[in-house]
Amino acid sequence: MKNKQFILAARPVGEPKETDWQLQEPDVAELTEGQVLVQVEYLSLDPAMRGWMNDAKSYIEPVKLGEVMRAGGVGKVAQSRSSHFSVGDHVHGMLGVQQYAVVKDKGLHKVDPELAPLPRYLGVLGMPGMTAYFGLLKTGLPQAGETVVVSAAAGAVGTVVGQIAKIKGCRVVGIAGGEDKCAYLIDELGFDGAIDYKNTDVKAGLKQYCPDGVDVFFDNVGGEILDAVLARINLHARIVICGAISQYNNTSAVKGPANYLSLLVNRARMEGIVVFDNAKHYGEAAREMAGWIAQGKLKAKEHIVEGLESFPQTLMMLFKGENFGKLVLKV
Amino acid sequence: MKNKQFILAARPVGEPKETDWQLQEPDVAELTEGQVLVQVEYLSLDPAMRGWMNDAKSYIEPVKLGEVMRAGGVGKVAQSRSSHFSVGDHVHGMLGVQQYAVVKDKGLHKVDPELAPLPRYLGVLGMPGMTAYFGLLKTGLPQAGETVVVSAAAGAVGTVVGQIAKIKGCRVVGIAGGEDKCAYLIDELGFDGAIDYKNTDVKAGLKQYCPDGVDVFFDNVGGEILDAVLARINLHARIVICGAISQYNNTSAVKGPANYLSLLVNRARMEGIVVFDNAKHYGEAAREMAGWIAQGKLKAKEHIVEGLESFPQTLMMLFKGENFGKLVLKV
Repeated sequence: MKNKQFILAARPVGEPKETDWQLQEPDVAELTEGQVLVQVEYLSLDPAMRGWMNDAKSYIEPVKLGEVMRAGGVGKVAQSRSSHFSVGDHVHGMLGVQQYAVVKDKGLHKVDPELAPLPRYLGVLGMPGMTAYFGLLKTGLPQAGETVVVSAAAGAVGTVVGQIAKIKGCRVVGIAGGEDKCAYLIDELGFDGAIDYKNTDVKAGLKQYCPDGVDVFFDNVGGEILDAVLARINLHARIVICGAISQYNNTSAVKGPANYLSLLVNRARMEGIVVFDNAKHYGEAAREMAGWIAQGKLKAKEHIVEGLESFPQTLMMLFKGENFGKLVLKV
Repeated sequence: MKNKQFILAARPVGEPKETDWQLQEPDVAELTEGQVLVQVEYLSLDPAMRGWMNDAKSYIEPVKLGEVMRAGGVGKVAQSRSSHFSVGDHVHGMLGVQQYAVVKDKGLHKVDPELAPLPRYLGVLGMPGMTAYFGLLKTGLPQAGETVVVSAAAGAVGTVVGQIAKIKGCRVVGIAGGEDKCAYLIDELGFDGAIDYKNTDVKAGLKQYCPDGVDVFFDNVGGEILDAVLARINLHARIVICGAISQYNNTSAVKGPANYLSLLVNRARMEGIVVFDNAKHYGEAAREMAGWIAQGKLKAKEHIVEGLESFPQTLMMLFKGENFGKLVLKV
């Protein structure tokens, strides 16, 4: 049986190009004991993938040149040499950008397509949802009545951050690119304010929508947006550093937050998070979020693009701010 | 009776110049009820004074143009219309850069020249000591066996941070300017390593002296030194932002820490502190530190310059790294 897969062919400098990957069609390997063959159905496309392409020490090993590009995904078990999984089971795991994945059973867990559509397990019920849940609640520590700002607010993580902050009784302001996204945040998700960074001045927007300052900032973007929010934080504010998508394709140095001394003036804190640290508690979080979804308090939005071959161009939508909700590639 | 005082005459752009202050000789005002006249003996010169000269929102009001330049100091009560202070008492408070200060009694507290030399109440037993004590212990949270790095290590705050970290069983590395200061940190204060940022490469020094990475960084300096340490932090590191003396005289924007995403990779935290927040607990801290001084575990060093008139030039020693220990002006 033939596979189709994207191999990392070069380490990009700046924006990734199509030629940084190579589409290959090797045979699917024979399973050994404990392995499972998964037919990949949906792949999660995430800003973090850009970091995995760099040959730099980080919270996870870089993808090696010649290896299948790393990606989380969901799919159906096609063959199994594991007692934990049977043919036909649906599973989630690091499947890679390919049609078929041979994976050790301990790297997979089952998902139920009856409980939620499969792409949802890559979004609100997957890593982005967990990132939002733990990052906001454990590190952001929002209190009812406080103002929470989130950047990349219409993205996979941002939509969940904002909705959980609303559930916790906060005033919520999102920063997103474009009128459509901003309208969605307010009309569909119940945000109190939305700032269109592509067409309006972020500083002015923060002044308008955060009249009492900012208590929690959940940052996915970095760069000028981080600086603008730093200038508006309150005493003892908490800034959750989840990502910095504005900086991932830099060819020069990352732009550090020039306003970081606002941390001193305001006795505030900036703290980095990595979702994997909470793996032991994913179950509890998923149950609580499923409850909120059932009650209509937590809505999910996926942006699904079809065709494995479109992977390079589809990934780039993230960096151009073209996705609207969790970006998923349908294989 | 004539006073002699430095008035803030202009708001400096970049490095302060002599003409940013004006030396005036007005009459000493008559006391009203509740006021005390203090003959100023020693003034504390601190990097924070540069910030007070800016017309910017901060943790404390700026000094207004035409006002006496703010400074902490110790002196002797010369007249009193307060039931709390008698002529001859020694007191500490915000006295200002002048020979005589008329101060409300609630802004003063007594110090005992028998227990410690007066300048010590401006250093290890004053704001710098409190800053080091609370900043390190409450925000840095050093654990025995961890590596603690402190910048401006031979300064008023840095010397105390390093010695308290040693008392707590940490490996301590100081960053300071010049061989003399580095030798002092190691030979006199028992630091495990000292990096001379004026003559050697800080990154190489951190690699050499922090082979197991950095768990706590107490930063007084900012700029390139902060970036160099960010590149070496461990998982769950704590960075205490106490100041950024390298940036206070910038005429362009502050240099933000380009390596701040190391916070994400390492799930680390950067937090600002202001000593005044701990005012309720100064007494306990002073008692504990006095105990350490008595046991010879905490040594103090003051750098005393004489003559009120030399205030502008003496203050600039801080920004040139010319002081060695707590900088004090003897009036």
